[in-house]
Amino acid sequence: MIVIKIGGSSGINLDHVAADIAALAKEGQQVVVMHGAGNEANALGEKLGHPAKHVTSPQGYTSRYTDRATLEIYVMAACGKINTFLVERLQKLGVNAIGLSGVDGRLLEGARKDAIRIVENGRQRILRDDYTGRVEKVNAELLGVLLERRYVPVVAPLAISYQGDAINVDGDRAAAMIAGALGAEQLIILTNVPGLLRAFPDESSLIAHIDKQHVEASIDFAEGRMKKKVLGATEALALGVRQVVFADGRVEQPIHRALDGNGTVID
Amino acid sequence: MIVIKIGGSSGINLDHVAADIAALAKEGQQVVVMHGAGNEANALGEKLGHPAKHVTSPQGYTSRYTDRATLEIYVMAACGKINTFLVERLQKLGVNAIGLSGVDGRLLEGARKDAIRIVENGRQRILRDDYTGRVEKVNAELLGVLLERRYVPVVAPLAISYQGDAINVDGDRAAAMIAGALGAEQLIILTNVPGLLRAFPDESSLIAHIDKQHVEASIDFAEGRMKKKVLGATEALALGVRQVVFADGRVEQPIHRALDGNGTVID
Repeated sequence: MIVIKIGGSSGINLDHVAADIAALAKEGQQVVVMHGAGNEANALGEKLGHPAKHVTSPQGYTSRYTDRATLEIYVMAACGKINTFLVERLQKLGVNAIGLSGVDGRLLEGARKDAIRIVENGRQRILRDDYTGRVEKVNAELLGVLLERRYVPVVAPLAISYQGDAINVDGDRAAAMIAGALGAEQLIILTNVPGLLRAFPDESSLIAHIDKQHVEASIDFAEGRMKKKVLGATEALALGVRQVVFADGRVEQPIHRALDGNGTVID
Repeated sequence: MIVIKIGGSSGINLDHVAADIAALAKEGQQVVVMHGAGNEANALGEKLGHPAKHVTSPQGYTSRYTDRATLEIYVMAACGKINTFLVERLQKLGVNAIGLSGVDGRLLEGARKDAIRIVENGRQRILRDDYTGRVEKVNAELLGVLLERRYVPVVAPLAISYQGDAINVDGDRAAAMIAGALGAEQLIILTNVPGLLRAFPDESSLIAHIDKQHVEASIDFAEGRMKKKVLGATEALALGVRQVVFADGRVEQPIHRALDGNGTVID
């Protein structure tokens, strides 16, 4: 069992990724796919006159401020355009993909963080009416029922709060929770860079291997979005996933290349 | 087993509909929900500068011309906003809803009609690059697996073509195909009128009952969108569904009222 996270940034080659998922499925490998939505949600927000607002926590993590209007845009991009057309793309390659978000069948559950502390112009303040959260529980039974019947679940990065609100969640950490809940062997995180770079954006500074004992320390190298990926990797390994690979999603056979050890291998 | 179609036009009270679905689910009734998308897709198209284009066939029927850009908008409205937030609404009421479109797991399959003959300024021409079609096959096994586990499937009106393209389909006729494939007892079609009206829009001219032998003739009374609903009813009855009810979706307990015989009952 492999969980594959396809980043939401530009540059990832979906033709190559989809073809490789089809190849894995033909080999009889059980696969769960999680995708991002960042770029598409940003572009849609711009077009609709409600551009995305990113905020920074006191700990230095950036995230999307998701009021209800932003949540609607995020849902249209994530569950609508990206999810449906990724499923369509996989179906064309003979993969019996089935699109879900964490809201469906309470696939991904977590607490809604409706008030978040942010840093703006060097000062802390609280933002309310935020529809974000973190995945705490996975409905592994639902995924199991689908995987048993040879469907390939394609999951959009939303969860449902304990009160039943749809919430925006980080896709990398959600993929880590899914990988942990399913007892996946590997979590492959595809991005538009070759892996974790010692000196971002110098691609020749790729860190080829990180011992899982030291994964948390590697967060010091992680730039921007990569911080959450390192956090996801840490969480997946803590949940018993054998190996996490940060791999290049721009190349041919990106998943097979990752499984062959290309990228940043953490185990 | 009941299949409920919630129309995509304005006026339907989703609070009442969702509360009634929750009541049915608590009574142990198996329910499949299908929703429309027309209004929301039109509104989104306007906002994005790509308004819906309706075309007229040589036979005088109008339909939505769905080029790829329109399909994207339709998918964002149908699978994104409407489907996800209907699932959220049901989840808040304790219904374990799960959103799908016909693309997911090849739930609804049919032939894509990629070339359509239209009349424009009195002249016939062929439009290509249309993403529409009609549901011909239902993956009843997938719905069965979910219903067995007490999920309530909530289905968006898209299908997948035999070549793997996502296609826009009529929701009423899709709901009829689902009802037939599942051997549903009843198909309840909720709209923003009390049922089929002998003299539209005079609501006092409601036709309370139609014998299923004569349902096809009743298409003469059907105005605009109602024509496809009558066609759907005809198809559902031909597939063995015992009863179809066109019912008012604006009122409290709209489904229970329909089951009690309010609306246009066809059996």
